[in-house]
Parts: sequence; C-alpha cells; structure tokens
Amino acid sequence: MAFAQQPAPVLSPEVHPDGRVTFRLRDPNAKKVTVSLEGGKEPLAMQKDESGVWSITTGALAPDLYGYSFDADGLHLLDPSNTEIKPNLLQLSNVVHVPGSSPSPWDVTDIPHGLVHRHSYHSSIVGDNRDFYVYTPPGYDSTADTRYPVLYLLHGYSDDASGWTQVGKANLILDSLISEGKARPMIIVMPLGYGAPEIVHPAAGAPPPFSNHDLRERNFDRFRQALLDEVMPVVEKSYKVDTDHDSRAIAGLSMGGAESLLTGLNHPEKFAYIGAFSAGGLGEDFATQFPQLKTTSHAGLHLLWIACGTEDRLITPNRQVIGWLKNQDLQVTPIETPGMHTWMVWRRNLAAFAPLLFRAADSTSASK
Amino acid sequence: MAFAQQPAPVLSPEVHPDGRVTFRLRDPNAKKVTVSLEGGKEPLAMQKDESGVWSITTGALAPDLYGYSFDADGLHLLDPSNTEIKPNLLQLSNVVHVPGSSPSPWDVTDIPHGLVHRHSYHSSIVGDNRDFYVYTPPGYDSTADTRYPVLYLLHGYSDDASGWTQVGKANLILDSLISEGKARPMIIVMPLGYGAPEIVHPAAGAPPPFSNHDLRERNFDRFRQALLDEVMPVVEKSYKVDTDHDSRAIAGLSMGGAESLLTGLNHPEKFAYIGAFSAGGLGEDFATQFPQLKTTSHAGLHLLWIACGTEDRLITPNRQVIGWLKNQDLQVTPIETPGMHTWMVWRRNLAAFAPLLFRAADSTSASK
Repeated sequence: MAFAQQPAPVLSPEVHPDGRVTFRLRDPNAKKVTVSLEGGKEPLAMQKDESGVWSITTGALAPDLYGYSFDADGLHLLDPSNTEIKPNLLQLSNVVHVPGSSPSPWDVTDIPHGLVHRHSYHSSIVGDNRDFYVYTPPGYDSTADTRYPVLYLLHGYSDDASGWTQVGKANLILDSLISEGKARPMIIVMPLGYGAPEIVHPAAGAPPPFSNHDLRERNFDRFRQALLDEVMPVVEKSYKVDTDHDSRAIAGLSMGGAESLLTGLNHPEKFAYIGAFSAGGLGEDFATQFPQLKTTSHAGLHLLWIACGTEDRLITPNRQVIGWLKNQDLQVTPIETPGMHTWMVWRRNLAAFAPLLFRAADSTSASK
Repeated sequence: MAFAQQPAPVLSPEVHPDGRVTFRLRDPNAKKVTVSLEGGKEPLAMQKDESGVWSITTGALAPDLYGYSFDADGLHLLDPSNTEIKPNLLQLSNVVHVPGSSPSPWDVTDIPHGLVHRHSYHSSIVGDNRDFYVYTPPGYDSTADTRYPVLYLLHGYSDDASGWTQVGKANLILDSLISEGKARPMIIVMPLGYGAPEIVHPAAGAPPPFSNHDLRERNFDRFRQALLDEVMPVVEKSYKVDTDHDSRAIAGLSMGGAESLLTGLNHPEKFAYIGAFSAGGLGEDFATQFPQLKTTSHAGLHLLWIACGTEDRLITPNRQVIGWLKNQDLQVTPIETPGMHTWMVWRRNLAAFAPLLFRAADSTSASK
C-alpha cells in the first residue's frame, strides 16, 4: 500500500499522564537538534536514535499551554507532527497543551461561552488596514438594555491583534471566571497594538527597530491616538457598553503593558483601572512620559496593578516604575509571580486581574 | 554588535513586480531541498549557493494567495522567514501573496468591511466542544428591522472552521462583491464540517480514515444533524435572518461540497440554492444517498451549481454526479474552470457563485 512505504509518522508532542512531554523530530541528517520550550532557560538537547528520530522527554510540566520550536543545526523548525501553532509576526512556534486533573481557566470546557467578533477597518491615523477583536460575554444581547463595562486588552511586541484570543485565551479565561462568579461580565476589546507597524519589520543587519527611541515613541503615540479616536468610538457605538470612566479598564502585556500605563495614566478621565503585565519599552524619563500625573487628579483611579515575573529580565525596570509611581502619590498594587517573559505568566495575570475590575463600590481609590 | 554576528536572515518569499517569486531557505547540511507550491504539479528543486542558502525563482504567477512548504531530505519545513501560514489540521503550509495591478476580491482594501463572529458551543450530537464562524455584511445592525439571507459555507477535509475566513477569505470576497453591487448583502455561516472528528486523526500505518466508508457516512450524517439541529437554530435566533427556504443557500468545497449536496438535496424544504466546489467523498450509489430526489418535489430549488477544476482528479466523479442529477430531472449549472484541487479555484468559485444567490425573483427553478 502506498501509505505504508512512507516512514511511520513520528508522534510529537506526546504528553504523558504525569505531565512529562516527549518531543520528537525525524531528521536523520542533522548533527545537533534542540527544542526550545517557552519558559525554559536554555534549549534542551535532543538525542538521535538509529532511525534518525531525535527525541527528549521533559520533567513533569505544570498544566498549561507551552510554546516550543526545534533548532536543527541553526535552522528554526516547527514540529511537522503538530499543527497547533502560536501566531506571531516575527517567528512562529508550536503549542503543546499539558492538561491538569481539573480544567485550567484557559481550557475549553462545556460552559457558556461568549463570542469573539473580528472587526476590520482602515486606520487614517496609522495609514493601514487593520483588525481588532471584541469579546462579548455569555448572555450578551445587543437588543437588550443591559450595558457592560469594557476592558481594553493589549498584546505584546511581535503579536498581532489575535494574540490575546489565539494564544492568551482571554475569551476562555473570562468565560471561566464569569461562569464561576469570580469576574463581572465584561466586554474585552483587543486592538492591534502598533502605531508604527514598521516596528515589527526588522531589516537584515540593522538594529532591532524596537530599540529605536523615536520609532518607539511614534509607535506608542499613534497607537494611543488610534485607540482613543478610532477604536473606542466604534466600540461605544456598536456595543452595549457603559461609557463612564468607572466602567473602563486598560491592561496589556510587555509593550502593551507600557501602552496601558502611558494611555491610562495620561487619560485619568477615561480609565479607572489599569493593568501592566511584564511591561516593557518605557523610557527612563518617567516624568516626561506621564505629564498628566502632575497636572490632573488621579483620585478616580481605582486600581493600578503592575505585575512581573521574578525571572523576567524586565523585573528591574518594573520595580523602578512602581517605585516612581509610588513617589507620585499613586497607590500601586505590585505583583511579583514566578516565571519569565511568557504567556504562562500573562494568562495567570489576566485570571488574577479581571476579578478585580469594575468593583468601584467596594474599592478605594488607587490615588492617595 | 550581537545581532550582526548571526547569519543575515534570508528574504523569503521575495515577490517580484512581474509576479515571479523567489523562495529561499538557509540549510547548509541538506542534500536536496524542494518547494511545493499550491497548484504546482511537482515540487520544484532548489539550488544551494556557497553560503548554504537554497533558492529558486518561479515563473510569473497570476495574482493570488499561494500555499507552499519546503521539503529538505524528506523533512517537511515551513519557511522560517515567513510567519503567514494556512491553518490546517493535518499539515501546515506558508502563504505567499502575489498582488495584481488592481485588487483581487480577496485582497484587503479600504472598503466597508463586515464582521466575523466566532461562536463556541458544546455539540451534543457529535460530543465535542467546537466553533462556528458567522460573517455579517457591512451595515448589518442587530437592532434594526432589516433581515438577511444566509449562505451556509462548508470547508474541506483537513480544514478547521476558520478555513473559509483565514484561507478562503470569504469575508473579504463578500465585502468586495457587496461593495461593487455584485452580490446581495448576506450572512455567511461557517461551521466545523466534521460529524466524526476522528476522521481527521490518522493513525500511523493505518489506512487514511477518510477512505473508511462507514466512518465517512457517520461523518456526513452527524455533520448534517449538528448543522440543522444545533447551528441553524442558534443562527436564526441570534441574527436578523430570513428563514424561508428562498433565503437559504448551502455550498462547500471538497468534503464540504459533498456535504452541501447531501444536505441541500435531501432537505429541499430548507435550501433553495446549492453549490459544490470540487466535491469529494460521495459514494457511487447516488440513489441511496439522495433518497429525497424520488419522494419530494425539488421545484423550489433555484440553483444547483456544481464546479470543478479540469486538472482536479475529482473532475471525473463530479461529471458523473452531474450526469446522474440531470437524469433525475434536475437542472444543474455545471462549471469547469482551469485549476487543480486548490484554494485558488475555491476563492474564485465563491466569487462567481455568491452573485447568483437570493435572486429568486429573476431566476427559474433548477428543477425542470
């Protein structure tokens, strides 16, 4: 039979009941093959068997979704046996799901699910055609009177607008929190986080564009302008949302964490809840970047939640910005968790942050 | 500088102004590297230069989106320089966009865009958690009185429910047709096409599951049941749709083409327009599969549009089913186009088929 003449396909990844994972790659010619696992400090060396299949079995991994990719003699390889991937604008990787004995908030289960709506529009501010995604919670009904608060949720550098749903599972996490009564039903808006899209088009031999200060500033400024002047008006016209500042939150990861702080703290009239997960890309001259802290009251700010993994190299700048913000008489909720600069940290950040939102009646101001 | 010590990233794919495309892969150790291009008859051999970069430049390609992947000594490789991919449950590939001098209907342009809504639900009929996608046209307003006709649009074997939007660009094609006044504004519903999901889980050394007759039958039956009893009721409750049979169409590609014929022709009370693009997977005993043709009037069928590429190996079975349906006194619109079993054919099929829908006032019955 024709299909029997092919070498047997390799099984990869193989997730064992105890959470160990075996990765396999058939590559008889390669001299050295490694697998890089999201959250791992170093790539793991794989061993070749007599049939040319490289493999390695990890120790037991905590239940989660892990990105991974292979490297064979310098060549970046996706796993040909796995069609689950993480979308990304700079480099793709595969995903392996390690299930737990009970579902994690990001697992697909048989509970009521909200919807994810994809909008496409032309941004006059940035000058491109782009998307944003909107999550509406279970039971949302555009023809009913109920209105919802809104979380603007921003992805990181190299993600696209689908990052928080495709990789971050924000929709599943909220479905789960809402189902358990842990978070208020809310709408989540996930825009494209680039005000200067060329920042994700590195050129061969040139310095990384994100290290260009002017480009980064333009990226932040135009992103903020597009969010406030293009995305928010469409959301507030198209969905049943509350539009008072107590009903708006903004949060994001990495570059999106910086954008949340820059947008939120400079628009205290618009956002009462701010979250930054492993924020990155802020300059060091905080006073210049947050001019509104001097001139405008932040008494209406209910939550300023700044989280970072202790093994993330951004822990130091995050501690610095927290210290500076405290010196500006803001009440910061600093969160340090285990972990590196990974989606495992950010999914847990969202699961911890979302329950705190839109509780103004119970909460005190984050501004002293 | 650290980033200068890495080998320069290779540019791939490079699309030239005349439509030629250069593919490149750095793989110094490989002995033979080929690139398979969607719609190509054979993989193209690539040549290695002294720096270990393999490359080939194609002839001029017609403006389109082309899937491609590399093979290096038997190893299936995605292009590490390209993060555009085609989602697929069996094997991933990259995508290269060859633009034309004027936009194709599937290109992103600055015209009014509809929305794509992702629904997640538990299927009691199939026994899994699954998605379906709904396109609403520009100007759709769930709070207004306007109602829309609905096209149920089905993907092929190995695609997931996102296939028709992510790869087929059905939303962009309809945006374009509607913008030019060529198609009636309509809603498109894109469900997951598997009634027996194990049909997309081939086992090593076993025959391909799609060749298993009983499994294929169960796949078709439960798909149809889930569509009619689970998806359609949610659509008709959640969206402003007309629910008379003149306002419902069903069409699909390959496996989804067979499903469109099986569902549409066996439910003449529900669908007045049927399309099959490169249909595959029908058995040969047509009389058994289409029992309603003998017992029920098909006088209300306005369009039975059956298309196939002339270079598709399914052209013969498609001609056979067309011949048989004509013998059953149905008026078939047979369409033969250039092309193989590819998305280039199916995107053009949709662009040709959608303008014919929901024109009952102008059209005659497809039943003589």
